[in-house]
Amino acid sequence: MHLYERPIRFEDVDAARIVFFARFFNYGHEAMESLFDELEGGYVHLTMERHIGMPAVHVKADFKAPLRYGDVARIEVTLPHIGTKSCTYRYSIFRKGDGVHAATVEHTCAVSDLQAMKAIVIPDDVRVVLERHKV
Amino acid sequence: MHLYERPIRFEDVDAARIVFFARFFNYGHEAMESLFDELEGGYVHLTMERHIGMPAVHVKADFKAPLRYGDVARIEVTLPHIGTKSCTYRYSIFRKGDGVHAATVEHTCAVSDLQAMKAIVIPDDVRVVLERHKV
Amino acid sequence: MHLYERPIRFEDVDAARIVFFARFFNYGHEAMESLFDELEGGYVHLTMERHIGMPAVHVKADFKAPLRYGDVARIEVTLPHIGTKSCTYRYSIFRKGDGVHAATVEHTCAVSDLQAMKAIVIPDDVRVVLERHKV
Amino acid sequence: MHLYERPIRFEDVDAARIVFFARFFNYGHEAMESLFDELEGGYVHLTMERHIGMPAVHVKADFKAPLRYGDVARIEVTLPHIGTKSCTYRYSIFRKGDGVHAATVEHTCAVSDLQAMKAIVIPDDVRVVLERHKV
Repeated sequence: MHLYERPIRFEDVDAARIVFFARFFNYGHEAMESLFDELEGGYVHLTMERHIGMPAVHVKADFKAPLRYGDVARIEVTLPHIGTKSCTYRYSIFRKGDGVHAATVEHTCAVSDLQAMKAIVIPDDVRVVLERHKV
Repeated sequence: MHLYERPIRFEDVDAARIVFFARFFNYGHEAMESLFDELEGGYVHLTMERHIGMPAVHVKADFKAPLRYGDVARIEVTLPHIGTKSCTYRYSIFRKGDGVHAATVEHTCAVSDLQAMKAIVIPDDVRVVLERHKV
Repeated sequence: MHLYERPIRFEDVDAARIVFFARFFNYGHEAMESLFDELEGGYVHLTMERHIGMPAVHVKADFKAPLRYGDVARIEVTLPHIGTKSCTYRYSIFRKGDGVHAATVEHTCAVSDLQAMKAIVIPDDVRVVLERHKV
Repeated sequence: MHLYERPIRFEDVDAARIVFFARFFNYGHEAMESLFDELEGGYVHLTMERHIGMPAVHVKADFKAPLRYGDVARIEVTLPHIGTKSCTYRYSIFRKGDGVHAATVEHTCAVSDLQAMKAIVIPDDVRVVLERHKV
């Protein structure tokens, strides 16, 4: 399990004063990027130098409780599925203050050559990182 | 079916030069807001004056093809489900230029009192609007 | 003068329930992009095919009155300055409903080759469009 | 001088693959919020409990060099001006990697009662924090 914490910012909430649902996916992606800190050069090197990225092919989310300005999102990242050319990240998102479960997001990506925009077999060093967080 | 068209803006794409997956949910929400133009005062009046909103409880999405800067997203909004206190919007998103199917998003909301943050029975005038787009 | 109207969206406001100041610059840029609808292929063709863009070099803004969810921003675009390789856009932003002056933004850009990331002499067809809105 | 560091994220760049100019103001605001970690409860408590905020009244910015995905923005916050009811933050923004000066932003705020939306005399405890970073 990879852990990522993210404070909710002043501009992150909407007219109902709760975090807009689409932002949970931004938070999840941030958490995913940070998981690759375990890889030399991180997600930046992977995408910008090796041109390997993770376009989403399927997403599902359950929202349980709102996040508000001042909360800190505690995001636990695991991988329920690792295939040949794709993988699924699970983001379990909690309010750090009171431990309440705010949302769970599942994010399935096609590991891809970003220049050709086509799926590739997951490179070995990437797979090693993913396997560490397999559940 | 409610139709909403949305040009992709210069700042809407990410480092891979395609629309970041989380933004599809923003586009869907915009399309949903515009559906309520059929209601007196629109979604603004509904949320800000009557304090009735649509927090997401469940979302799923399938991504088929990328959107890029310069594309126009053509979003068809329908309602596959209308319950007592909740409803599901389906956003079928196409690239307007070539008609390619970019994504389908299903967005289930709890019709809610935004002050008490609890689900309420869908008001009659809101239901009338939703029923028009039932599939 | 080029006119652009932009409804304020549900997710555009911040925890103080007013439009976050940084978003005024997003709105200004949208207005600027739309000005180039007068050019064949618009700002998309200019930036993506001809690789000519407008990186900001200087910005200043005065904020007079807030914008809120449900307001429509009425943005008047003029050009107080057009140089050899740069130009200044002025965005006068009003609340459409009551006509109140919300903000004025001045946005000076270096007309640039986006691949070399260096300033170029403003191309003639671009200059023609800019000159139309000179004040 | 208050220091804030902020990695540039995958979704932070635009179609020209550099950070969109409006985002520099978001980064500046984040830096300003973090300055108030020196105050009990931080900027969250100030705005959400005491209803005291900092709406922008004037902004100016000079952009010197681009930021790209993978850069870390190093933001130095100082206060060149502290008045009775207003103050000016200066954000000097550098690329952490090579030390290049990317931008300077000056951000003048009216210290305000967010409920009445009117300027107030800067509270003493807030002034103490601001004075620490006066230049």
